[in-house]
Amino acid sequence: MSTRNESYLVGLIGDGITQSLTPPMHEAEADRHGLRYLYRPVDLGVIGRPGTSVGDLLRAGRDLGFNAFNITHPCKQLVLEHLDEIDPRAEAIQAVNTVLIREGKFIGYNTDCSGFTTGFGHGLPGVTVGSVVQFGSGGAGSAVAEALLSLGAQRLCLVDVDVARAAERASELAARYPDAVVEAVTAERATEHIAAADGVVNATPVGMHHHPGTPFDVGLLRPEHWVADVIYLPLETPLVRAARALGCSVLDGGHMAVGQAVDAFALITGVAPDSARMRRHFLELTGQGDDAVTVPASAPEGERNHEKQEGVL
Amino acid sequence: MSTRNESYLVGLIGDGITQSLTPPMHEAEADRHGLRYLYRPVDLGVIGRPGTSVGDLLRAGRDLGFNAFNITHPCKQLVLEHLDEIDPRAEAIQAVNTVLIREGKFIGYNTDCSGFTTGFGHGLPGVTVGSVVQFGSGGAGSAVAEALLSLGAQRLCLVDVDVARAAERASELAARYPDAVVEAVTAERATEHIAAADGVVNATPVGMHHHPGTPFDVGLLRPEHWVADVIYLPLETPLVRAARALGCSVLDGGHMAVGQAVDAFALITGVAPDSARMRRHFLELTGQGDDAVTVPASAPEGERNHEKQEGVL
Repeated sequence: MSTRNESYLVGLIGDGITQSLTPPMHEAEADRHGLRYLYRPVDLGVIGRPGTSVGDLLRAGRDLGFNAFNITHPCKQLVLEHLDEIDPRAEAIQAVNTVLIREGKFIGYNTDCSGFTTGFGHGLPGVTVGSVVQFGSGGAGSAVAEALLSLGAQRLCLVDVDVARAAERASELAARYPDAVVEAVTAERATEHIAAADGVVNATPVGMHHHPGTPFDVGLLRPEHWVADVIYLPLETPLVRAARALGCSVLDGGHMAVGQAVDAFALITGVAPDSARMRRHFLELTGQGDDAVTVPASAPEGERNHEKQEGVL
Repeated sequence: MSTRNESYLVGLIGDGITQSLTPPMHEAEADRHGLRYLYRPVDLGVIGRPGTSVGDLLRAGRDLGFNAFNITHPCKQLVLEHLDEIDPRAEAIQAVNTVLIREGKFIGYNTDCSGFTTGFGHGLPGVTVGSVVQFGSGGAGSAVAEALLSLGAQRLCLVDVDVARAAERASELAARYPDAVVEAVTAERATEHIAAADGVVNATPVGMHHHPGTPFDVGLLRPEHWVADVIYLPLETPLVRAARALGCSVLDGGHMAVGQAVDAFALITGVAPDSARMRRHFLELTGQGDDAVTVPASAPEGERNHEKQEGVL
């Protein structure tokens, strides 16, 4: 077994994350590499602490021997002020989902962004990124928008029920990617942009078990569109289902969920994980087969997981 | 590999304990049982916190998913006020070295005492406990004295440079063990008591690498005496060496060091560890063979460990 110097203690700080799939994903992959690895969920709701306690939790974790934390809602921005160093891309997005503790210092990264990029490469190889309409410009949306522009998108339309947030995000992105056109558009105007787009992304909660529906009228999709969703519980959102039925290339939310874990694992351990193996394990954990496009009615374990797990990253 | 529900996160809180052998003892034994187990030293000196911070550290550990802590110098008494429940024997000793976290509550135990008892049974089977002279009545000494009386000692003489402490301890013990004679005696008067005793115990730091010497004149020993030491680095203290040379039955300090870890492991996991295997591993870690009575001059690894490790429990 591993020596003490090769052991890893990792936590996930966020609200409602007790059933997150990220801890078992990390632990199973570490086992395959012979690493002593323990990953604890630190659920703010369970321990009765607010998101603003993230700094105290990081410092306590440092004292108690943690090597790293993943950070999720509502702490991805709140954590920024507690960092000693920040990766340039995470700084650009102004959101951090991974904190390494090195020689007592907190170093922030964003593997939602890199994880979406990695997942995109695996799940939608060879598609034209060109022009994209993205629904949602919140935490996950910021990481996805950054990833799309870094993948070469020339035109990115952001659609959000919070129009001011979309406009602010578009302005920031446009300043950093001067060769691309980034704009916030209303839901009404999104229709014409979808018609002209190569792909459409959902980064809103619409399609999750407790937010049923689709973020836009799927009648606007054509087989030539690629469609990406960030929701992974269920993998088969109404949007993903409709897009598949139409013949679109589809990237389900599991790719980003696995991608962020793959990249965080590599940062924490310095060991390259087997991303295909992590994807298979992820699908097992969700009770969904590797080629599943529907959850069988005879899969009570999977369904029960769906009820308990909120698709948190 | 184990599921998440079977994983264990444990810490050791104390000063100067970074090189303690307890964490690797626990981890290696857990591996043999297929348990996911991570044990972190939390060295107050390294993190720059006083012994009085033990309560804050316990609460932080609870929030971050720890299952248990071992507690050592200088926190074995300081931790008492932070407990929700305490095992009767630990309460009697007024010292706790193991805290379980169960449903958010802190429950204190003392496995120094039970560990000495277990080690005594393994290392000195069949000896007459009857009349004992014990040097040292501090933290370890309190646990050992309790163990000796519970093993059936009818007369226990406590010798300590801090005469008041020995007297206080003797008074407490006498009240709890009314059928035994427990008294504090001066180093001068100890001579006659050793002559009449079945066994002699060292629970002072005298004999450690940085406290050379013996706690009393070993010329007082006879082959009929049994001799126990609580120091384990080195296992071969000048007292142990002299007693062995004389033909006494000897219990080295490794038995208590392993015994406390065996009992803590069982409390934490509910799994009975293999105490002989833990003893063998302990001896490997100290660079001392199972039948070693001297550390070979050709054992640089063992010697280096001795310099770094202060024989902490």
